This record gives sequence, structure tokens and C-alpha cells, in this order.
Amino acid sequence: MTGTIDFYFDFSSPYGYLASERIEALAEKHNRTLNWNPLLLGFIFPLTGQKPLVDIPMIDEYSMHDFHRSAREYGIVYNHPKTFPLSTIAACRAFYWLQTNRPEKTAEFVHAVYRAYFSKGQMIAAASDITKIANSCGLEGSGIDSANDDPKMKTICKQAVDLAIERGVFGSPFFIVDDEPFWGHDRIEQVDRWLQNNGW
Amino acid sequence: MTGTIDFYFDFSSPYGYLASERIEALAEKHNRTLNWNPLLLGFIFPLTGQKPLVDIPMIDEYSMHDFHRSAREYGIVYNHPKTFPLSTIAACRAFYWLQTNRPEKTAEFVHAVYRAYFSKGQMIAAASDITKIANSCGLEGSGIDSANDDPKMKTICKQAVDLAIERGVFGSPFFIVDDEPFWGHDRIEQVDRWLQNNGW
Repeated sequence: MTGTIDFYFDFSSPYGYLASERIEALAEKHNRTLNWNPLLLGFIFPLTGQKPLVDIPMIDEYSMHDFHRSAREYGIVYNHPKTFPLSTIAACRAFYWLQTNRPEKTAEFVHAVYRAYFSKGQMIAAASDITKIANSCGLEGSGIDSANDDPKMKTICKQAVDLAIERGVFGSPFFIVDDEPFWGHDRIEQVDRWLQNNGW
Repeated sequence: MTGTIDFYFDFSSPYGYLASERIEALAEKHNRTLNWNPLLLGFIFPLTGQKPLVDIPMIDEYSMHDFHRSAREYGIVYNHPKTFPLSTIAACRAFYWLQTNRPEKTAEFVHAVYRAYFSKGQMIAAASDITKIANSCGLEGSGIDSANDDPKMKTICKQAVDLAIERGVFGSPFFIVDDEPFWGHDRIEQVDRWLQNNGW
């Protein structure tokens, strides 16, 4: 969509977390509307045969080193979760519940989930974990705790993943600006230059 | 090694090629000695289970788009080879022959091989392809055409790959500065900032 930055991420993606801490400044700089699009790599990795970096020999050690190094560069707190990766279906369904019912809360919720997991040592896999985080965003009694069992949210969540796949999204983070795809936290500077120069 | 940039690459790696066109400027900027280290991903990929990007569903299309896009950004000519990837053993052995016998020619040779393959549509798999490229670097009659069958070069080449693996190198391009590893053409800017700031 022209005029937007479509930001795709999985809530258990370290580089997605790092990108989430930087993407709003980028959107603001270029006067772009930011679209948050959580997705579920568990449904996408089988299509490409990819797997989490920390499950790949040699790349595991490098990645762990780089998560911390790249976080330090941008002044982002990073504490690698003890349980990693984990299912982010509950977080995803809660996000889409918010997008439907309380869209003004989506950004705050994304940050709360990511920070809970990657800086505060909290779990985010269970629906009860997500409810606790939602409550910390002032969403107690909002109805968000029904999202995980809501057939409508299950469908919306699945559709969001399918649509991402249709658009060629295969990793996290992933950015689409004016139909131009960029993969990886380490491409944020390139997206910045692309927007600055109207492409090249 | 302190004071150096150790640059690892495979001669059939598109991002290795792009990095080869930029790495000398980076080394010069930071007053670093540049060490060229060609390696053979064919011996490294089995250790990680990785494979060429163009052989992975979804990632294939993105990568092909990005090879050209990233080349354009840096003003590098890029014509994706018709035969891709291919064996780079002959190129690797010839490189190490040069490093032993005519070290002042190594950089020129790396550029000649990469450009032959990624901009001029030439093949680089056969020893005869490499001899032709070496001749274009003024190496006719130098003896480099013996490298591919030279048991010493076979050994040196294998040792170079083994040493790279020992240092944790698993992809191309890969940079090591002061024992700090960086993977990917899209990390050159980060290496630049790392050197500028003496780390962080």
C-alpha cells in the first residue's frame, strides 16, 4: 500500500523485536503510516524449509552473539529468553482482536509483548500470559482475554498469515514499502535510504 | 588478526561479489590490511544444512530481486549468471597459488574472476576458464595454470576452508575484524560503524 510501511514480524523473533523498537522512528521520519502485521513463522517455515537460527549448527552461536551486539548498537535492552522459541498464537490472536476492537492500542500492545519476552524474562506463550500483558496496557475487562478462543480471531489470524505468504513474506522482520520487499533487521538502514531516495 | 579485515567469500556468491566491490574502500578508510579468503561453500553448507538462496522456495524470488537491487544501490554491474551456482574449486586453487607465488596479484585476480562471472557472462568453473581469466591479468606463462592439479594447492585450499570453519565462518560474505564476526553483504555498514567506534 503506498504511503505505508508494512511491518511483518513474529512475536518470538529476536530481530523482529529489535526492529519493533526502531520502526516507528523510521515511519515518522518518512511520514509513513506504520502497519503492524504479526505473523506465525511456524506456518511459514515449512514452506521454505527454514528453521530458527538458534537451531542451526554454527549459525546458532553467531546469532546469539549478534542478537546482543545488534541490540547494544541501538541501545535496546536484550535478554535472551530462557524458553525460546515458543508459540505466539495467543499473542497474535490478541493483537488481531485489538486491531478489530481497540486499534489505538495495537502499538502499545506489540511493545508490551515483545519487551515482556525479550527484556523482562516473562513468558508469552499462554493465553494467560497475554492477558496479564494486556492488563498492563490498561485492557483489563476489555474482552481481549476472549481472543484466544474466538473462532473469528482464529480465522483473522490465519488469513493474516496467508496474506503475508501471498505477498512473499517468508521471515521476520520483513518490510514492504510500495510493494518493495526487504527482509531482516539489518535492512532497516536500506529501507531508510530507499524511502529517502524514492528507490534507485 | 588485529589490524586486518579478514574477508571470506565464495567465488559463486552474489553477495560475496557485491562485497568484493566495496571491501577495499572500507579497509582503506579504516587503515586496515585486507585479507582475501576465498572458500568453498560446498564444503561448509553440509555442516549447517544451508543451501543456495536461489534453491529455496519464496527466498529464491526475493534474492534474485535483491541481488540486482543491492547492486544498483552501490553502482555495481550485476548480471545474474546463466549457470548458477557452480564449482569454484579451480578459482580457489588458483587464488592460493597466487597467494603463494604472486601475492601482489591476488586482489586483481579476485576482481577478474568475480566480474567475469557476475558481470561479463563468462564461466569460471573449469580450470581452462580460470587460466583465461588469469591470462587477462597478465599471468600468462606464470605457472598458475598448474594450480588446479597441484597437490600442494589442493591441500592449501582444503586447509583454508577448514580454518575458516574453525573460526566460525559459515557463509559468504563473512568478515572478521579483531575476532568479531559479521555475516552478510548487508553488514558492511555495521562493520564500518564497528571500526569507527572501536566496537560498542
